[in-house]
Amino acid sequence: MTDSTASSPQPRHDGRTPDQTREVRITRNWLDHAEGSVLVEFGRTRVLCAASFTEGVPRWLKGKGTGWVTAEYEMLPRSTNTRSDRESRKGKVGGRTHEISRLIGRSLRAVIDTKALGENTIVLDCDVLQADGGTRTAAITGAYVALVDAIEDARAKGLIAKNAQPLTGSLAAVSVGIVKGQAVIDLDYPEDSTAETDMNVVMTGDGRFIEVQGTAEAEPFDRDMLNALLDKATQGCADLTAKQQEALAATPRERQQ
Amino acid sequence: MTDSTASSPQPRHDGRTPDQTREVRITRNWLDHAEGSVLVEFGRTRVLCAASFTEGVPRWLKGKGTGWVTAEYEMLPRSTNTRSDRESRKGKVGGRTHEISRLIGRSLRAVIDTKALGENTIVLDCDVLQADGGTRTAAITGAYVALVDAIEDARAKGLIAKNAQPLTGSLAAVSVGIVKGQAVIDLDYPEDSTAETDMNVVMTGDGRFIEVQGTAEAEPFDRDMLNALLDKATQGCADLTAKQQEALAATPRERQQ
Amino acid sequence: MTDSTASSPQPRHDGRTPDQTREVRITRNWLDHAEGSVLVEFGRTRVLCAASFTEGVPRWLKGKGTGWVTAEYEMLPRSTNTRSDRESRKGKVGGRTHEISRLIGRSLRAVIDTKALGENTIVLDCDVLQADGGTRTAAITGAYVALVDAIEDARAKGLIAKNAQPLTGSLAAVSVGIVKGQAVIDLDYPEDSTAETDMNVVMTGDGRFIEVQGTAEAEPFDRDMLNALLDKATQGCADLTAKQQEALAATPRERQQ
Amino acid sequence: MTDSTASSPQPRHDGRTPDQTREVRITRNWLDHAEGSVLVEFGRTRVLCAASFTEGVPRWLKGKGTGWVTAEYEMLPRSTNTRSDRESRKGKVGGRTHEISRLIGRSLRAVIDTKALGENTIVLDCDVLQADGGTRTAAITGAYVALVDAIEDARAKGLIAKNAQPLTGSLAAVSVGIVKGQAVIDLDYPEDSTAETDMNVVMTGDGRFIEVQGTAEAEPFDRDMLNALLDKATQGCADLTAKQQEALAATPRERQQ
Amino acid sequence: MTDSTASSPQPRHDGRTPDQTREVRITRNWLDHAEGSVLVEFGRTRVLCAASFTEGVPRWLKGKGTGWVTAEYEMLPRSTNTRSDRESRKGKVGGRTHEISRLIGRSLRAVIDTKALGENTIVLDCDVLQADGGTRTAAITGAYVALVDAIEDARAKGLIAKNAQPLTGSLAAVSVGIVKGQAVIDLDYPEDSTAETDMNVVMTGDGRFIEVQGTAEAEPFDRDMLNALLDKATQGCADLTAKQQEALAATPRERQQ
Amino acid sequence: MTDSTASSPQPRHDGRTPDQTREVRITRNWLDHAEGSVLVEFGRTRVLCAASFTEGVPRWLKGKGTGWVTAEYEMLPRSTNTRSDRESRKGKVGGRTHEISRLIGRSLRAVIDTKALGENTIVLDCDVLQADGGTRTAAITGAYVALVDAIEDARAKGLIAKNAQPLTGSLAAVSVGIVKGQAVIDLDYPEDSTAETDMNVVMTGDGRFIEVQGTAEAEPFDRDMLNALLDKATQGCADLTAKQQEALAATPRERQQ
Repeated sequence: MTDSTASSPQPRHDGRTPDQTREVRITRNWLDHAEGSVLVEFGRTRVLCAASFTEGVPRWLKGKGTGWVTAEYEMLPRSTNTRSDRESRKGKVGGRTHEISRLIGRSLRAVIDTKALGENTIVLDCDVLQADGGTRTAAITGAYVALVDAIEDARAKGLIAKNAQPLTGSLAAVSVGIVKGQAVIDLDYPEDSTAETDMNVVMTGDGRFIEVQGTAEAEPFDRDMLNALLDKATQGCADLTAKQQEALAATPRERQQ
Repeated sequence: MTDSTASSPQPRHDGRTPDQTREVRITRNWLDHAEGSVLVEFGRTRVLCAASFTEGVPRWLKGKGTGWVTAEYEMLPRSTNTRSDRESRKGKVGGRTHEISRLIGRSLRAVIDTKALGENTIVLDCDVLQADGGTRTAAITGAYVALVDAIEDARAKGLIAKNAQPLTGSLAAVSVGIVKGQAVIDLDYPEDSTAETDMNVVMTGDGRFIEVQGTAEAEPFDRDMLNALLDKATQGCADLTAKQQEALAATPRERQQ
Repeated sequence: MTDSTASSPQPRHDGRTPDQTREVRITRNWLDHAEGSVLVEFGRTRVLCAASFTEGVPRWLKGKGTGWVTAEYEMLPRSTNTRSDRESRKGKVGGRTHEISRLIGRSLRAVIDTKALGENTIVLDCDVLQADGGTRTAAITGAYVALVDAIEDARAKGLIAKNAQPLTGSLAAVSVGIVKGQAVIDLDYPEDSTAETDMNVVMTGDGRFIEVQGTAEAEPFDRDMLNALLDKATQGCADLTAKQQEALAATPRERQQ
Repeated sequence: MTDSTASSPQPRHDGRTPDQTREVRITRNWLDHAEGSVLVEFGRTRVLCAASFTEGVPRWLKGKGTGWVTAEYEMLPRSTNTRSDRESRKGKVGGRTHEISRLIGRSLRAVIDTKALGENTIVLDCDVLQADGGTRTAAITGAYVALVDAIEDARAKGLIAKNAQPLTGSLAAVSVGIVKGQAVIDLDYPEDSTAETDMNVVMTGDGRFIEVQGTAEAEPFDRDMLNALLDKATQGCADLTAKQQEALAATPRERQQ
Repeated sequence: MTDSTASSPQPRHDGRTPDQTREVRITRNWLDHAEGSVLVEFGRTRVLCAASFTEGVPRWLKGKGTGWVTAEYEMLPRSTNTRSDRESRKGKVGGRTHEISRLIGRSLRAVIDTKALGENTIVLDCDVLQADGGTRTAAITGAYVALVDAIEDARAKGLIAKNAQPLTGSLAAVSVGIVKGQAVIDLDYPEDSTAETDMNVVMTGDGRFIEVQGTAEAEPFDRDMLNALLDKATQGCADLTAKQQEALAATPRERQQ
Repeated sequence: MTDSTASSPQPRHDGRTPDQTREVRITRNWLDHAEGSVLVEFGRTRVLCAASFTEGVPRWLKGKGTGWVTAEYEMLPRSTNTRSDRESRKGKVGGRTHEISRLIGRSLRAVIDTKALGENTIVLDCDVLQADGGTRTAAITGAYVALVDAIEDARAKGLIAKNAQPLTGSLAAVSVGIVKGQAVIDLDYPEDSTAETDMNVVMTGDGRFIEVQGTAEAEPFDRDMLNALLDKATQGCADLTAKQQEALAATPRERQQ
């Protein structure tokens, strides 16, 4: 039985405190072609997020005056400890890949005013170059920054109106979980693979929830533990939001034209 | 903005109170061949859950002395208001289908002691015959009952030991959501398609959480609203657990051999 | 060598006479959404037939002033004694599934005046919930009734003309075969899997042939035996036609709107 | 309404009488590698039948001491009047292709004693080089001859016993149909595409039935017409059997080793 | 180490000199339906090339006033010594098939003025009926002749202008390679499978290069050897060009209309 | 008509001379998990090459005492100027991807002694993060370095013998082409898309050819031009070989264990 109320936190395998995320790096304009691009790193987890802005919308949205934002997530075959087969070679996209792609897209749409975007589409490609736990939360956190850059790029090119505000807020994501009976934040792979409970939380910059996905891997969890996890996630998303703002405030790596 | 603390609940479109699930019917042994089978109905939502017990396990588990429980969810093409194309004809399984199949399997495994199951596999096929919202929660709720029957059938046939206890608890699921600013339980399709927030909660019979999946469809939600939803889900899962116990206590429809 | 002329018929494994079909049940409006729907049962064989009426036709028929009727047949994975893999997961539709879908569609079109249907499409989904032999003939027999209901529904909604007569006749189907040297009708699974010859016959209500498909599974059959089989099929289709008329004459299970 | 009893037959579009098949050519050993191969021509219909003999059987037959015969039918993209897309490019095999492949394999197995074949497999590839109606019946008729050659080749190489008799009889196939109200044999494409009824009949050399597949394309047919068609098919299969025997009696085109 | 400068050539396994191609046969109008068709034989290698002319172009070319020429190559399952599985059954086209299809299409387009072709498409289907090395070079050599016939057929039907010259030159292809240290031309399968280096060369009738594809199978090759191979290929393509002209000058096998 | 003998070279659009490759960067150990990994950059072209060493070989090689080296190439959807659809979503791998994957694998195997490798497999994943022309030649050049590292890693772990020499030489690749009538090396995208002829050349470190693939995109090329291209490629591969040796001599970026 888990004890989430332990007063003295146990040390984590990499020396972090329960509340401490890994080192987060957000490198803007990592690519030269994409309208927005970010290499986001949560420790050794490394995700390349590319935002592609195109005029027009999918057929089912045509003529409605609204835009579309979607995402595709995929892992490179050797992003992981042992090589996985490519989904393109297997001829089908796996359930986990679908699930995470849908999560990223849905999350981003929660801070998008599709009317303000006009009949334009932004696709966020989140490719995991190296995986060490938390790839989906890193992807969401990085994709938001790439999305901001793609929208500004479109504005600069006159593809959306000068005063249009397609973004209604900011968004970050973090994983929390119960490892050895203790609630911790931003699990790396060794923690994730032994966690009793794993939860991914997506929040707005003003502290509201977009997605809460918690799974008892080994042991059902009670309401107290759920609350402890939500507290940690709230703090972690606030920290990540600060990192995003910092990255967006800086002059990005020069993009080659 | 949502107001989750409204003291006087508004009437729902079908006359239910916010706390009221739809009429739930659990018909055991609806099929003659399957080791366990349940036709579960949440109002007009109707899901056929078939549990297939087979000796042996997938290759990656062989020789480890543990069993496997998995699930496959699919909707019949005309289960919905307008016909959808068959995934078999499209040649690929959609993201939503994958996602729900994985949720059902993961949830059931949370109450399974795979060691006690021995090297046996149980597949839960959850086919939606008619969809009116809440198909995944109905599927989980029904699949649990079919799983119990399949395990008892295996015990009767001597495929698992007389005193083996593969089930470590019971399990039920319900949807909750915010509709017109009000937290309600067991949303039907008209509610689901207009909900601001939609959450699916899977709980054990003793009131702990297996899965919490909440999504802000239209508007991010705050911690108070999240708490209100979790309260409703806790009550709803308790009600469904009672229905399951009642069904399991009864003599099922005679199964033809 | 088979002896089709044996004067004293042998008893069948379930007590039926050679000429006796299983108990046939036709439940109309089993679904709430579909324009026509029938749960048809030939003994333990149970097929859900849903007719979906949609305005418009496939691209290759556009502008020709004629409608289209087609069918898709599929078996639920645990409709059978042992579970089969889903075709959607395998990523391809099997030959048998294709063959039967085509048979059902072709048969139904034989009693449809596509001009009278106008540029509308009716898809018949025939999903086998439980299989015990004769699923394709049950599917055809049930699909005809669902088709009638869908056409009447379209007429009521003004989608086809008040006096249009898209149906040019009725249609039923039955299997016949040679089991232990004896011609019998409506084979169940134990009979079907040991039959020397298996034949599926689709006939109009006025006793003419739509499809005759006979296969020597074990032993080629001679003209006399073929005639004996055709005689049985003719009688059986007449019986099924009567059942269909009876079902169509009754007030169906209330359909929820 | 059709009149099958018309005493004076009408002339066919290519001058044949109702009972007359097209010119049939059977060229053995058209290929150098295959254990048996036949280029069979029914008029302009041209099918290349290659029989591949391999030691061993599919997994599900291993250790049972019986062999396996199967077939794959396919049309070259420009075998037809207008080019069709390749099934390999579409990524899936069409229903018609599946259906005919299954028919050919099933028919051939009806004259095979799989015990006498031993644990060996023969695959019949029937590729339509040019299509002008009757491709499946030409394929069956030619495949039988290739099958005979492959078995003799295996006997010569000592892969089956000197005195083994895997073939229990011979087999030929022909199409019959009702064209302009008249029963005719071996329909070419112009006839086939306008036939009221189309029937494919596979028969043994001693005049018994293997397969009877009749379809009312435009108009249901009565028992008299069915009998007229069966009479024609019986005569036609006898003619084809004679052609096969003649081809098998001749010294085939030299096969290059 | 290879010695490409050997003054006295060694005899080849089939008696040819190093410079000698196999017997080449080009049979025009082998099919009745295709606008152009050629059965091309390089010794025992036998490829059926069908050119299909259709009005219109793929979507991405519409309205640009230019035509399109493309090719699809495939091997019949028993064209080879041992049977290969069909790509249509495997559900995907293999890399080699793709590669060769692209090579053929690209080569043919090098002698096509797509403006002069108008908005029309010609597809070259090259199906290998029997493979004995050099299938891709035989296919290109035959496809050119079929292409000429299809263009003349279109001209005769008025689908392209009387004086349009879509063909800017002629084109032939041959393989060369290093076998047992000696440069040889037009390798058959036994040579091809033991070659140290294999090169396919596509040239215009006036002796310029369209494609040069050389691969060191066993041993890297030096510039001298490369030159020796290119010399042989130049001579071989000239010989094949002469054969093509001869075939095109003759009155072709009568095409049945 | 092209003039390859022009004495005074024209300036290229980015200021390079005809003989000048772009800036080449080879970063070893860019990944933490892979046994060998290289981020290779040819100007803005950026390819991540990961070498995965695993014990064992594919089924068809088992028990032969030889190893296997293969490669998979793929482009990220937004590596290019405009986004391309993912091959995994399309459900099939395109011809170009297949072709390049095969080229990389075949090239690497030309410098591998599979006996010396033992029954081990090395897969080279070459994922294009950014494309600006020359992705396949960059991939080969980088993959060689990753392969060296993976072999040394295996040696250090005792997976291959201390004194085994699986590598028989080194290997580099470069593109050459005719742009505006002038032979140039290492084409970037703007050059590649307007080149009259494009050639990819793979050479060993000692100056011999592994692959020569030249294609006339717009205009057939003569022997003189071919020679000019080969001269340029020979020089370029020598330069790249020097860069590889330099990178391999340096202490790589620390790999995190």
